[in-house]
Amino acid sequence: MEYRIEKDTLGEVKVPAQKLWGAQTERSRSNFKIGESASMPIELIYGFAYLKKGAAYANHELGVLSVEKRDLIARVCDEILEGRHDDHFPLVVWQTGSGTQSNMNVNEVIANRAHQLAGRKVGEGEKVLQPNDDVNKSQSSNDTFPTAMHIACYKKVVENTLPGLRQLHKSLEKKSIDMADVVKIGRTHLMDATPLTLGQEFSGYASQLEHGIKAIENTLPHLAELALGGTAVGTGLNTPKGYDVLVAKYIAEFTELPFVSAKNKFEALAAHDAIVETHGALKQIAVSLNKIANDIRLLASGPRSGIGEINIPANEPGSSIMPGKVNPTQAEALTMVCAQVIGNDVAITVGGMQGHFELNVFKPLMAANFLQSAQLLGDAARSFDIHCVQGITPNRARIKELLENSLMLVTALNTKIGYYKAAEIANEAHKNGTTLKEEAVRLGYVTAEEFDEWVRPEDMIAPFS
Amino acid sequence: MEYRIEKDTLGEVKVPAQKLWGAQTERSRSNFKIGESASMPIELIYGFAYLKKGAAYANHELGVLSVEKRDLIARVCDEILEGRHDDHFPLVVWQTGSGTQSNMNVNEVIANRAHQLAGRKVGEGEKVLQPNDDVNKSQSSNDTFPTAMHIACYKKVVENTLPGLRQLHKSLEKKSIDMADVVKIGRTHLMDATPLTLGQEFSGYASQLEHGIKAIENTLPHLAELALGGTAVGTGLNTPKGYDVLVAKYIAEFTELPFVSAKNKFEALAAHDAIVETHGALKQIAVSLNKIANDIRLLASGPRSGIGEINIPANEPGSSIMPGKVNPTQAEALTMVCAQVIGNDVAITVGGMQGHFELNVFKPLMAANFLQSAQLLGDAARSFDIHCVQGITPNRARIKELLENSLMLVTALNTKIGYYKAAEIANEAHKNGTTLKEEAVRLGYVTAEEFDEWVRPEDMIAPFS
Amino acid sequence: MEYRIEKDTLGEVKVPAQKLWGAQTERSRSNFKIGESASMPIELIYGFAYLKKGAAYANHELGVLSVEKRDLIARVCDEILEGRHDDHFPLVVWQTGSGTQSNMNVNEVIANRAHQLAGRKVGEGEKVLQPNDDVNKSQSSNDTFPTAMHIACYKKVVENTLPGLRQLHKSLEKKSIDMADVVKIGRTHLMDATPLTLGQEFSGYASQLEHGIKAIENTLPHLAELALGGTAVGTGLNTPKGYDVLVAKYIAEFTELPFVSAKNKFEALAAHDAIVETHGALKQIAVSLNKIANDIRLLASGPRSGIGEINIPANEPGSSIMPGKVNPTQAEALTMVCAQVIGNDVAITVGGMQGHFELNVFKPLMAANFLQSAQLLGDAARSFDIHCVQGITPNRARIKELLENSLMLVTALNTKIGYYKAAEIANEAHKNGTTLKEEAVRLGYVTAEEFDEWVRPEDMIAPFS
Amino acid sequence: MEYRIEKDTLGEVKVPAQKLWGAQTERSRSNFKIGESASMPIELIYGFAYLKKGAAYANHELGVLSVEKRDLIARVCDEILEGRHDDHFPLVVWQTGSGTQSNMNVNEVIANRAHQLAGRKVGEGEKVLQPNDDVNKSQSSNDTFPTAMHIACYKKVVENTLPGLRQLHKSLEKKSIDMADVVKIGRTHLMDATPLTLGQEFSGYASQLEHGIKAIENTLPHLAELALGGTAVGTGLNTPKGYDVLVAKYIAEFTELPFVSAKNKFEALAAHDAIVETHGALKQIAVSLNKIANDIRLLASGPRSGIGEINIPANEPGSSIMPGKVNPTQAEALTMVCAQVIGNDVAITVGGMQGHFELNVFKPLMAANFLQSAQLLGDAARSFDIHCVQGITPNRARIKELLENSLMLVTALNTKIGYYKAAEIANEAHKNGTTLKEEAVRLGYVTAEEFDEWVRPEDMIAPFS
Repeated sequence: MEYRIEKDTLGEVKVPAQKLWGAQTERSRSNFKIGESASMPIELIYGFAYLKKGAAYANHELGVLSVEKRDLIARVCDEILEGRHDDHFPLVVWQTGSGTQSNMNVNEVIANRAHQLAGRKVGEGEKVLQPNDDVNKSQSSNDTFPTAMHIACYKKVVENTLPGLRQLHKSLEKKSIDMADVVKIGRTHLMDATPLTLGQEFSGYASQLEHGIKAIENTLPHLAELALGGTAVGTGLNTPKGYDVLVAKYIAEFTELPFVSAKNKFEALAAHDAIVETHGALKQIAVSLNKIANDIRLLASGPRSGIGEINIPANEPGSSIMPGKVNPTQAEALTMVCAQVIGNDVAITVGGMQGHFELNVFKPLMAANFLQSAQLLGDAARSFDIHCVQGITPNRARIKELLENSLMLVTALNTKIGYYKAAEIANEAHKNGTTLKEEAVRLGYVTAEEFDEWVRPEDMIAPFS
Repeated sequence: MEYRIEKDTLGEVKVPAQKLWGAQTERSRSNFKIGESASMPIELIYGFAYLKKGAAYANHELGVLSVEKRDLIARVCDEILEGRHDDHFPLVVWQTGSGTQSNMNVNEVIANRAHQLAGRKVGEGEKVLQPNDDVNKSQSSNDTFPTAMHIACYKKVVENTLPGLRQLHKSLEKKSIDMADVVKIGRTHLMDATPLTLGQEFSGYASQLEHGIKAIENTLPHLAELALGGTAVGTGLNTPKGYDVLVAKYIAEFTELPFVSAKNKFEALAAHDAIVETHGALKQIAVSLNKIANDIRLLASGPRSGIGEINIPANEPGSSIMPGKVNPTQAEALTMVCAQVIGNDVAITVGGMQGHFELNVFKPLMAANFLQSAQLLGDAARSFDIHCVQGITPNRARIKELLENSLMLVTALNTKIGYYKAAEIANEAHKNGTTLKEEAVRLGYVTAEEFDEWVRPEDMIAPFS
Repeated sequence: MEYRIEKDTLGEVKVPAQKLWGAQTERSRSNFKIGESASMPIELIYGFAYLKKGAAYANHELGVLSVEKRDLIARVCDEILEGRHDDHFPLVVWQTGSGTQSNMNVNEVIANRAHQLAGRKVGEGEKVLQPNDDVNKSQSSNDTFPTAMHIACYKKVVENTLPGLRQLHKSLEKKSIDMADVVKIGRTHLMDATPLTLGQEFSGYASQLEHGIKAIENTLPHLAELALGGTAVGTGLNTPKGYDVLVAKYIAEFTELPFVSAKNKFEALAAHDAIVETHGALKQIAVSLNKIANDIRLLASGPRSGIGEINIPANEPGSSIMPGKVNPTQAEALTMVCAQVIGNDVAITVGGMQGHFELNVFKPLMAANFLQSAQLLGDAARSFDIHCVQGITPNRARIKELLENSLMLVTALNTKIGYYKAAEIANEAHKNGTTLKEEAVRLGYVTAEEFDEWVRPEDMIAPFS
Repeated sequence: MEYRIEKDTLGEVKVPAQKLWGAQTERSRSNFKIGESASMPIELIYGFAYLKKGAAYANHELGVLSVEKRDLIARVCDEILEGRHDDHFPLVVWQTGSGTQSNMNVNEVIANRAHQLAGRKVGEGEKVLQPNDDVNKSQSSNDTFPTAMHIACYKKVVENTLPGLRQLHKSLEKKSIDMADVVKIGRTHLMDATPLTLGQEFSGYASQLEHGIKAIENTLPHLAELALGGTAVGTGLNTPKGYDVLVAKYIAEFTELPFVSAKNKFEALAAHDAIVETHGALKQIAVSLNKIANDIRLLASGPRSGIGEINIPANEPGSSIMPGKVNPTQAEALTMVCAQVIGNDVAITVGGMQGHFELNVFKPLMAANFLQSAQLLGDAARSFDIHCVQGITPNRARIKELLENSLMLVTALNTKIGYYKAAEIANEAHKNGTTLKEEAVRLGYVTAEEFDEWVRPEDMIAPFS
């Protein structure tokens, strides 16, 4: 491979000639051979691109950067956001915990690409832009990385997670309406209980998602706060007056998202509770989805020797050995995603709790776990919706059969003959393998006519009417 | 021991004569010998007392319970809330996952105590109140237990957790003002960095708490939703019309808290995402407090061979072998509480995700973990405040000494001579054990006068002014 | 209340006159009002009693403690181990993270009780034993607390957890033999699959427990290492030569357990990886038991509208509203315990990872969570065994019905006609609601006689014969 | 793009012409658009390659597969293991929880590649090998996927994790010897304590790793058990007699690792406690490494305003804004890895606990998290060793300065004048800012000569001699 020489304050470094990164990126590559390369999420790099452009604009407006430099920086940032330079960001999550090296990676790529745009050859002549003094002007890794985190995480939540969840919520709600008339047996403790409708069952799922979406939304204002302007320790050293608010305004404008400058920059560098907070809400959704997916696969279990109350789409052959098998694979993918999100929540918690003084140095870990969760939840919700929920149909014959067998219809008699006599009827029927009606009449507690009038599943399900 | 005979639908049971509980409580005692007895939190029992009273009032108002029965039930509930019957609730957390047995424990105690209040002897004659038909009227364990959970958890958060956190927040804020003029070295990556004030450092802690308190408050509307009225599976079977809304109104009135009837009762029985949600916010606070307590013990470390920038109160002898030792014991208690809350969050998550169909059967586990977290966080925040934070004073001599040594003051030169020359100065001073000024002048980058004018710690800390 | 005056190096303190504790315990009581009082597990106090007695013997043998003092100390320790002084240990888990105050609590109680045994009145005259100089001789909180932790945790595991698990393992194994002939449908992905026997299904559970018990046993040698002899920082300062090995020998003798002196005392104070390690194995068992308990409640679900392949004992009325309901309450208690253990594992992890230099200050937290897990797992395994597993019986009629319906018996034809034709048969039968045999013959792939000979459930279950 | 037609039991599918996969892989690609493509770890595919080859050999030896087919399968497997077909495995982790689709992906690639090796064109003519009937002969996804998991995970642990940990262990041990004479102040509760040597401090780290490595090794026999031979539900349906043991023998031979056939195949499909068990040990190591890395960065903190007792290598510029800054970046990368492993442990726990009946359907999740942890821990241990630990040197001047200041040297007087007088000396010195010696003499407890003789740091550190 061909190389060129780049240098930083520690000296010279050989860099692959075709790559736009510089000395510090190259050092990081060789010092952190941990896991696969380029594991730092590209969304974070894009977050950096927004903020570098925003900083350039703010710096220019406040008189500390020329319009030429501003436009050069902005032009490269736009190229990065178009995805044109993705393979110039080779660093891993497992680097310095402030993400300094990824900040420098971005600074170096912008400087070198600007050199090209200015008609020069990378590595030759005085750099048109200095990575530290120009591209990083009025910035520190310590405030840029958390800013890029918030930009990337916020975008992912509103552009992927929430749309996925809302789509699934809508389908669950639609199913709850479509199946509003399907009276079925309820189950508590996994045991037969009093009836409800399949629509009511699905309305519970929809309600869970509604609450969960609200919980995510509640956390967004905290996530919208940007650290930028705090620089090294939160004091804003080396920034022009008014810079922090102005740069947040530009980032909000470029991203079209409601970002604001964090009120307290010391917190914004030293703690990432906003990441903990929003991911806590993602974890709550994982808890909800695990329950919902579990229910759906249990309802679809069988087809002949399980519960079998609903049909789900057959998307693929289910088994490499058992011919003709259909499995609830979408529910499986979704529950695996839930387990991942729950694990990620602990990783984020462990990272978030261990900041020291003016800096939390678990930033890349926190960002990577958050972005994975937000991506997976949105994708999996969508996949589960399209390939499973939308295709669910009730198996009416089976539902009817199971409902009519149930001993728990006896509950309707509580208000007529009291809990204890009702229990006696159910116990006798269970013991003798008979029907509730047979036992109720035999025991003399009700007449056959009364039983038929009082024990009607369809009268047992109207909530709060 | 003396016994009396009680019975339920499974037959007769011997119960200790002096105890007010009945057959089902006694069965649970012998079937669930798991951990120490009476581990079910008493706050839950009190939650039940509020709801049983509320139910009695709603049932009476809707014409299904006599005024005499209503008043008897209410009278016993008031006695329970006064703490007069605490030792009649012997059950453990590790029982049926719906908490049925604790619901029955409450029903039985109310019925038997009412018998006494009516001038009878427990165990003699027809019961004045039937545990199931009267005390439990229009109720099921499935809706009462989650209602009691929400009442108990909500009360604990607003009466213990939030006041404790607000008290600590206030003290941190006060410290941030009191120490606003103490310029000190900043530390990032645990390494010397540019200066800030001790007040700014503490303002970050205060801001964390402010965000955390807001996060808890955001979750409260969900926690205020009560399941009551859903009865067995969420359909409200065997409840009179209008009961669910009315009973929530009474509970709100009796507790003086803004409880409302859950819009979707199916969710309210089958999932406890509200518990997951609020506890997620408690976990976030644990993350914040762990960081804060860690910082404070590091700042106080020494007294002679650590950082030693602040003094904390000496509340007790610190060591059984090292005479005269003082330790940051309040920080230790608090960080242990944080670890517990973080663990409890996983227990609650694991419980919350595993509901099946119409019922989640991890209710007692979820409630017990939540109540422990909410209690410990409030108590520990208060203890940490009183016995540590309020007594913190800056060690000005030490702070000054460490600040003046710092090489990172060189950062102030970035905007004058550029990052690279500034780095050279710092590297030389580090290598030679000299001062920045010596090297800056020696290298010819600035004059002594310029150095003195440009590198002034007190000018490096004014944020955003 | 009456008080007496006690003092320590910080001055005088008022102590309740009837209590044997001294100044430092009292200070802790007032400085750490966090959660309920006396939450420090009594088993830890007993662990201390063993070690204080062991230390007295070792100190005497090595010539630094008189025989009179040794015998006084030993006598009080024996009384403590008889449970006679339980209410003189009022401290909470949430104290100093080294457990210094509980060490001093034990030292103080021993000194004061010895004063009584020597015929004096507590609080009067020169103390017969000095808490620090005599009772704590050759010790520090830093090595005593972890020693008490290991003693208490080891004892709990071998005296409660393992016996409970072995009892459950034995029953599962017995069931697997008793039900070896019950051929039933298998289920993968919760969907119908090829047959196995109920005995085989239970053999899997037994095997999980066998592996889990082995995993716990693998960790015990690490847990058997005692920190005692390290004193303040691990160097053994102020201990007589040979003390560490000798004191471990005495503790092993008194407890009749294979304790040894830790090879590296620096680790033994500063890290509690042995607690993390053994609890990791407890968590593994929780994972196993959650799966087993879930299966059993699903197998027992119904009785009429679920799977219903096994019957479980009816130990109590299942519902306060649905008469005659029987629920898998033991499975519920057990799975709640599993969730707690999984949460406790995270609490222990978070505590274990945060030691600093020569000391980990999450000791009480780690001990309390470990002891709770070990207690609950043993108790719950025993309860689940006695009240559920032992009473399990197969529901042969139901099992037969479900087996014969299954389409997955077609798998037996793979080796005769290939996977693809077999799949076609199953798909046709599913689509048409017919039997496999009907479709197999109709499609012309096998004759009726071949089908009967080849598709025999009882031939599909013999493993590896 | 060009396509060809492939088909499975559900019908025809268009597949990219250049790809070796078939119909089921393609269905999975379109049904599971969750996260980035090809997230299924390649190590698992290699695990499959070993087992497919092993199965072919066993099938041939037992008379159910021709030698030609055996050799074709083996040849493709060898090519896969050489990494020649990596981009023909495009599936994601988030698919069916049994990993069926990845099993089929392997079956399809082997069949199609064999077709090429046999001189045919993929997609033309009768397939030389049938994916299900030949490549998957005597197998099911249900036993192959867990087998591939165990192969991949075992290999990763012994080839990456353990070597990395052993290398780090060796360096820590070497440092503990090299620095055996450096007497320094000890710290407990982060506060000054009695002395020890830097070598002793590092010996504790080495001992933690030694215990952790042993803990991992203890779990390997369980991980060495292979599910293969259980086929669909554990009964071994459709396998020739003796197959399970023989296939394990071949896999052991091909991998040169001690794999054996699992004694209980029902467990081996339905539960993955071996994964939980070994990962529990990885989590323990994460706990250890977090403590060690934290200590090292605290010891290196400064350089001027922290503890500064050791020097660590400067591998890169530390800050984009603060010139000349050096940070403990390797410790940061390592502690982020620890947080990830701790989070992964929860994900694996949540997956492991939720199996149903004959199958656990969280297999890909469990495998992916395990492999990530095992990779990161080995890599990070190696990186931390090379770029940090090996370069550590003591800062003797600083160590001496801090040691001599310490008030805790007073502890040496306990055995001479008692704890209480010693405490008085330390308190006075702290209050007055004087030395211990000054106060000891002033208070008249010892003479200056006695003090010099008794209080010698170098006499306070010899352990157990």
